[in-house]
Amino acid sequence: MTDEMPQEPRQDDLPAAAPPGAMLETALYAEDLDAAERFYAGLLGLEVIVRVPGRHVFFRVGPGVLLLFNPEETQKPSGNPDFPVPPHGARGPGHACFAATLPEMEALRERLVAAGVEIESDFHWPNGARSIYFRDPAGNSLEIAEPGLWARDG
Amino acid sequence: MTDEMPQEPRQDDLPAAAPPGAMLETALYAEDLDAAERFYAGLLGLEVIVRVPGRHVFFRVGPGVLLLFNPEETQKPSGNPDFPVPPHGARGPGHACFAATLPEMEALRERLVAAGVEIESDFHWPNGARSIYFRDPAGNSLEIAEPGLWARDG
Repeated sequence: MTDEMPQEPRQDDLPAAAPPGAMLETALYAEDLDAAERFYAGLLGLEVIVRVPGRHVFFRVGPGVLLLFNPEETQKPSGNPDFPVPPHGARGPGHACFAATLPEMEALRERLVAAGVEIESDFHWPNGARSIYFRDPAGNSLEIAEPGLWARDG
Repeated sequence: MTDEMPQEPRQDDLPAAAPPGAMLETALYAEDLDAAERFYAGLLGLEVIVRVPGRHVFFRVGPGVLLLFNPEETQKPSGNPDFPVPPHGARGPGHACFAATLPEMEALRERLVAAGVEIESDFHWPNGARSIYFRDPAGNSLEIAEPGLWARDG
């Protein structure tokens, strides 16, 4: 098994490591970063923490960060040997979900609707948690859900 | 301005709403979900919380969830009127970043290397935070970073 699949040795032979305890960055892609910033900062109210025009704009979301990348630029190899960030870049509609309480979700929904953003879906999951779905200007499928959706006892 | 861009009315005319306080879900795409599960659960140690063979596998990451979707399936419209999840699905290498302390990062790095996973990059950002980069079996660019990378005073 090990000889046939050198990238997958028996996992009980590997040194132990605790699993990562949190996501730090969530990435989506958009070619029009100005439109993305109007949407995520202007409409959703997220704080812009980094902006490299034409390449990326990053937003703070509580303890984490939402990254909007232009795949045309991020698919290029890094030109900076001090910060050799590997290339990446996806095409087509991605997905991400924000956590919000019901009152927070309602307020955001009203603001989105007033701005002309279509609420594409709005329903309750079997455990009772509500989710709403809408699109960013690049077509990414965004969700706002009650965090109880993924509660351990949910 | 409002007439020309009906989807972007003046934002100070909109009802107020607090920005979302946290990301709840981070999504990546992989056509081979079995390989993804061996990597994210078996190697990184993440707990599998939902598995729909061929369509998706979800992993708990602290207070959030990492979603691995097969875009061949998620780009199809939902067939369930009770849970009308909008279609999405990206192609090409995406990006996500896990938070870890330095000792946690070192342990994960040793385990990845022992499993034959290449550490594609490993460096310190200007504020001192360290990041390591590697690929999942689908080619997504994964990062493990010290959370101080995005600290407010970082």
